[in-house]
Amino acid sequence: MPELLKKVLNGDVRGIARAISMIEDQIIKTGTSEAETLMQDIYPHTGKAWVIGVTGSPGAGKSTLTDKLIEQYRAEGKKVGVIAIDPSSPFSGGAILADRIRMQRHTDDPHVYIRSMGTRGSLGGVSNGTREAALILDASGKDVVIIETVGVGQSEVEIMKIADTVCVILVPGLGDDIQIMKAGIMEIADVFVVNKADKEGADKVARETRAMLDLLKDKSWIPPVVLTIAEDGSGLPELVSKIELHKKFMNDTKAGLLRIEKRTNTEVETLLLSRLSGRVEQLWGTYKSDKIKDLLLRKTNPYAVVEEIITNL
Amino acid sequence: MPELLKKVLNGDVRGIARAISMIEDQIIKTGTSEAETLMQDIYPHTGKAWVIGVTGSPGAGKSTLTDKLIEQYRAEGKKVGVIAIDPSSPFSGGAILADRIRMQRHTDDPHVYIRSMGTRGSLGGVSNGTREAALILDASGKDVVIIETVGVGQSEVEIMKIADTVCVILVPGLGDDIQIMKAGIMEIADVFVVNKADKEGADKVARETRAMLDLLKDKSWIPPVVLTIAEDGSGLPELVSKIELHKKFMNDTKAGLLRIEKRTNTEVETLLLSRLSGRVEQLWGTYKSDKIKDLLLRKTNPYAVVEEIITNL
Repeated sequence: MPELLKKVLNGDVRGIARAISMIEDQIIKTGTSEAETLMQDIYPHTGKAWVIGVTGSPGAGKSTLTDKLIEQYRAEGKKVGVIAIDPSSPFSGGAILADRIRMQRHTDDPHVYIRSMGTRGSLGGVSNGTREAALILDASGKDVVIIETVGVGQSEVEIMKIADTVCVILVPGLGDDIQIMKAGIMEIADVFVVNKADKEGADKVARETRAMLDLLKDKSWIPPVVLTIAEDGSGLPELVSKIELHKKFMNDTKAGLLRIEKRTNTEVETLLLSRLSGRVEQLWGTYKSDKIKDLLLRKTNPYAVVEEIITNL
Repeated sequence: MPELLKKVLNGDVRGIARAISMIEDQIIKTGTSEAETLMQDIYPHTGKAWVIGVTGSPGAGKSTLTDKLIEQYRAEGKKVGVIAIDPSSPFSGGAILADRIRMQRHTDDPHVYIRSMGTRGSLGGVSNGTREAALILDASGKDVVIIETVGVGQSEVEIMKIADTVCVILVPGLGDDIQIMKAGIMEIADVFVVNKADKEGADKVARETRAMLDLLKDKSWIPPVVLTIAEDGSGLPELVSKIELHKKFMNDTKAGLLRIEKRTNTEVETLLLSRLSGRVEQLWGTYKSDKIKDLLLRKTNPYAVVEEIITNL
């Protein structure tokens, strides 16, 4: 067994760190990389951790909530991995010092592994390789993996592809209409959290969210709406129990299994597209500049160019 | 010359409608379809129209603004095509009756062609085939093509791929922070419009938007911020002149040309990926259910599955 794999499986902190860095460096594209081999080796050891996505607008309190989730799970004796993708998260070293210090208390706990990952692409969100990092933490023996991601546009959809339970964090007073109205958000959340529940308007946000749930097409799981005050931990036990309930739904019902299958399907398709786009870039790259000139002069057309590339694939 | 092509080039309304419907039905995937052939024929006749994207949150007044833009361009004697993708747009027949009637006054004008297109995929936004519809309108002799799209998540990025000038519409009082803060929006807008400028907070939105412009990496074009009241047409002449200014920048400067080249590149890559994903679905579809079972049982791993599919491509 390769040394790095052994270290990961033993939960060795340095081994985990090195494995994730390898993923970050090579971004799983070529199919012949070391990272690729590592992931092939790691995959059979995965499927035990429950992956929780925490997403929401900047300022919704995602990091504080994540901090408190770690606390809850540790109190239950569970091992926790955290992947922070939001660059402004204290876990990524981005926030104000006091927050950062408060949250870094977990770093002394050998059963908590916290890793920040860079976002690639200007729209931020879930980075390439996040899925792999979660798998590595899973194989390393963590019971729970929390992925904290900033909720802008595309990343909400991305987190749905990776997390077993997606918690969407809403807060009163932050353009509530937009938060809830956002197309697609209903399909993404498994649990809604209305954080800062002591603020004015929290009940309204919760009420409107519940009202929107009527629009769900697939009613096999109705996302619960949990009110929390992450700052003092209020509502956290309820949140954890709702996540547990969702886990039961996913594992023990036919509708849940269907969702897992659908997600596995998406996983393969996503990987496949990312591979293919690597190939495409390569192929297209070689004669791109000539073709672009011809296209601008209308000497050829995009459909013909694409046909040509595919024929040479 | 095929009959349908001839009709489109003559600006025949029924011909245009039929061409766009053909695109909608066949979604440009297979490479052997009639729609594909049509687009190959049409492409050499394109590149004359200026394509304007109008995007923004629901309620920002995109349709009213589009309505007034049509009016402005018609007053200059220009022929106008409109593609409405927002399903709640009066142009799509979605809004309240009074709006719809007001805006449908253009349908009696032979030099205005309005078409609504369905969104595909749960997140809405720019549909597959929008680019082709714009090309058809271009070839049909329209001087300006306006694409109205609802500004949620991914669609803002999509419109950037299609439109020559993207106008992002902001309004006071609609979660301003979120509107502006949204990652990536700076890179998408060529012109910012603060609509409903008579409402409280409009100046603040304009000011904050201008402040954000300092963060732009590429400063070859600094998006102007135009205040409008679409309802009564205030600010519309200025908006049109800013769009004109952007057109000059794109056509007459080196930085502009670079952007056009980059967009052409993206156009090919997007088409290529859409073709490839069609192929992938086909290939993966045949033995999907078996492989998913094996993946859930950890008998294989996604990386090996993907390798296998690519080898069989």
